[in-house]
Amino acid sequence: MITAELREQLTAIVGNENYEDSKVSKLVYSYDATPQFQAMPDAVISPRNTEEISQIVRLCNEYQIPLVPRGSGTNLCAGTCPTEGGIVLLFKHLQSILEIDEANLTVTVQPGVITLDMIHAVEAKGLFYPPDPSSMKISTIGGNINENSGGLRGLKYGVTRDYVLGLEVVLPNGEIMRTGGKLAKDVAGYDFTRLLVGAEGTLGIITEATLKLVPMPPAKKTMLALYEDMEAAAESVSNIIRNQIIPTTLEFLDRPTLQVVEDYAQIGLPTDVEAVLLIEQDGPLEIVEEDIQKIAEICEQQQAISVKVAESEAEADGLRTARRSALSALARLHPTTILEDATVPRSEIATMVKAINEIAEKHHLQICTFGHAGDGNLHPTCLTDGRNKDEMDRVEQAFEEIFIKAVELGGTITGEHGVGMMKAPYLHLKLGEAGIEAMHAVKQALDPNNIMNPGKVFAKDTRKRVVVNK
Amino acid sequence: MITAELREQLTAIVGNENYEDSKVSKLVYSYDATPQFQAMPDAVISPRNTEEISQIVRLCNEYQIPLVPRGSGTNLCAGTCPTEGGIVLLFKHLQSILEIDEANLTVTVQPGVITLDMIHAVEAKGLFYPPDPSSMKISTIGGNINENSGGLRGLKYGVTRDYVLGLEVVLPNGEIMRTGGKLAKDVAGYDFTRLLVGAEGTLGIITEATLKLVPMPPAKKTMLALYEDMEAAAESVSNIIRNQIIPTTLEFLDRPTLQVVEDYAQIGLPTDVEAVLLIEQDGPLEIVEEDIQKIAEICEQQQAISVKVAESEAEADGLRTARRSALSALARLHPTTILEDATVPRSEIATMVKAINEIAEKHHLQICTFGHAGDGNLHPTCLTDGRNKDEMDRVEQAFEEIFIKAVELGGTITGEHGVGMMKAPYLHLKLGEAGIEAMHAVKQALDPNNIMNPGKVFAKDTRKRVVVNK
Repeated sequence: MITAELREQLTAIVGNENYEDSKVSKLVYSYDATPQFQAMPDAVISPRNTEEISQIVRLCNEYQIPLVPRGSGTNLCAGTCPTEGGIVLLFKHLQSILEIDEANLTVTVQPGVITLDMIHAVEAKGLFYPPDPSSMKISTIGGNINENSGGLRGLKYGVTRDYVLGLEVVLPNGEIMRTGGKLAKDVAGYDFTRLLVGAEGTLGIITEATLKLVPMPPAKKTMLALYEDMEAAAESVSNIIRNQIIPTTLEFLDRPTLQVVEDYAQIGLPTDVEAVLLIEQDGPLEIVEEDIQKIAEICEQQQAISVKVAESEAEADGLRTARRSALSALARLHPTTILEDATVPRSEIATMVKAINEIAEKHHLQICTFGHAGDGNLHPTCLTDGRNKDEMDRVEQAFEEIFIKAVELGGTITGEHGVGMMKAPYLHLKLGEAGIEAMHAVKQALDPNNIMNPGKVFAKDTRKRVVVNK
Repeated sequence: MITAELREQLTAIVGNENYEDSKVSKLVYSYDATPQFQAMPDAVISPRNTEEISQIVRLCNEYQIPLVPRGSGTNLCAGTCPTEGGIVLLFKHLQSILEIDEANLTVTVQPGVITLDMIHAVEAKGLFYPPDPSSMKISTIGGNINENSGGLRGLKYGVTRDYVLGLEVVLPNGEIMRTGGKLAKDVAGYDFTRLLVGAEGTLGIITEATLKLVPMPPAKKTMLALYEDMEAAAESVSNIIRNQIIPTTLEFLDRPTLQVVEDYAQIGLPTDVEAVLLIEQDGPLEIVEEDIQKIAEICEQQQAISVKVAESEAEADGLRTARRSALSALARLHPTTILEDATVPRSEIATMVKAINEIAEKHHLQICTFGHAGDGNLHPTCLTDGRNKDEMDRVEQAFEEIFIKAVELGGTITGEHGVGMMKAPYLHLKLGEAGIEAMHAVKQALDPNNIMNPGKVFAKDTRKRVVVNK
């Protein structure tokens, strides 16, 4: 709880205009993009610089007030839901691109910059920032770093972590630490840069980041391959990689997803096939053409019933947009859409999709599956109704079985969405008790008063998504 | 100290034949490749599997005995010198390549595998493991991971950290933890995989690793550009990158290094120029040819006095070997060779080399500089004599000034060699007190009895390399 005295100290730091605690403000920041989670914060604060953040953190540490850093709240793991109340920290005054350094191929940004705005700014200089989470139109770079966001280009280019070279961070004790820099190589001390990436705001507040850029690939081609069975599609994925072609994007949609997406986007996708692969390659034109040709041959050998290369950028863009709109399209159909993130080694995709379908059938649920086939990163998505207690119990049971299966196949409970509050009860499946204990030790060492985004990553109990926290 | 009782328990675990404590055995493992550091261990143990390592760690934790994991001891930061006595742990029974997985493009290895042996094994399957530390003929993968080794191909392909997907590790409490997996994406919990890479054995003992492989680039070309002044060479490096060409290798040698290397390797290198750039590009043949052509033009525009592309693989190999032999060649000349590792943003290379030369002159020292120009990772190398106390004091002073300058330019005190015991007194220059404190907190949390490679990374005092610890 924020006392009158603390409130006064906080407003003295940020100014009255950057401190909100009206019921409406608190309600607005009581949830994020994750369905079924909600909790009221005590206040919403918008600091203007790192120094103010440091002062706020010191006060919160002294008074043991939870702090929840929040970009646009697009995460899907309840990572920015203020589960234990306290202060939601916004970055609306920290939205500058500080520098694009063409000699060192870096961009330095404040955490509140919108991902796509930054991508456009570097592209204007002929440079490329590959991570492209589906939410990039509204997500912030700070949020991407906290969640270690992935995206469609992850297969070839990696994820957010692979592009973070240096950070400025306010630690839970209020100290300001700088890690890394514009450096391709740096082994001075523990790798706090990567420890903070994906730590979901539980170890500190990121206040600045230096990101790696790469040259813009000169050409890109997009193609679609249709299959009458899932195994053939999965086998194509394996064979493309086995032939040592690493496409930029290798996406998969199953029949139910395809039907919904076409209904929503109306771009003439076929809806009578079992699986679709959306494949993109970028690079020098001659290599792209060669690769696309080879990929087409591999798909045909694997009984693809149709293989089609987009003839124009408009057509390619239509296909990409279709894939990107999968979640929005699915979300229209039922009151509650639960998107999951189980990931397996790519050789296990067919087995995993089969297991998901069996689990869905067993529990009488509608689960559509799409995702990043090249990464083994699948998004089984359950169309359900949060008000139906019986069905939600079955949803919970089904996803637990899906996670167990993913881990059994050498996979993980989350490939790119993060743990947050939503996956915390399952984390032990992947890390084991030794791993959870080691994480606890690090958290306790850096944040002994547990003020940094408490209730996330670490499970307090076995409470799962079906229990809404009002 | 190892009591008779503890000795008995340790030999019961590993067998008498894997426990050595003769004076000779201890002497052999009292130092590593780093000059001026030596300390006697109490015993040298060669466990046969992870379970035995776990048992050893539990005993060491109970009896508070230091444990120093050691591959081939090729590190240059005194990282495997048993500074505080205790047990040196060898991996001679853990030298298997467990699996090369062509569908998932991974290799799983035990820590004692020699780097080049593994590279050859994956190349036999047409796959490529890019990190290539100069010591790769004898270094082990476990050592590479502990030190986050770099190499000549780091500019385009990154360093060891970028290829470690998963680890099995024995934590300081003896628990066995598994991180990551054959997964392109995994955000389940804190990134212990990357925290352990480069932690120099201070947080746990790595007992297995799953590494990422990439397709073998089909072609490679090598070229040499000669310069009459350093600035022009540095400007070429910047312009190559600014033109959005990322070569595989972009190495630099200054005149003194060049003379010594040619004297040693006798491959017809010019010795009357101020700087040489050794440049390699790999990829599809047409792209390689195009890039090499463009690079040649850029070098010529920057007043390179000669630009020559190697005409055969034998000639290219000679050039690469010359670069790789720089340290050995320099080491022949004086009793003591101190190789440093200051790294700056690549745009600052010319400034840094100039500063190094001025500092050398000021302290009347012979410092040759070579290194990975594309990474800004320079290796100023001092040819000196450890017995000359006055000169060694000046060496120490000079390197401190070099580190301060590197950090001032946005760089770091070590790009790829690690901190170990040698750089520990300088670490605060890069990390500041907040960073050192955060590292201490993590170390204390995971290894409260400080048994894991104690005396490394964290400076106990201001003792520097000039004091030999006998």
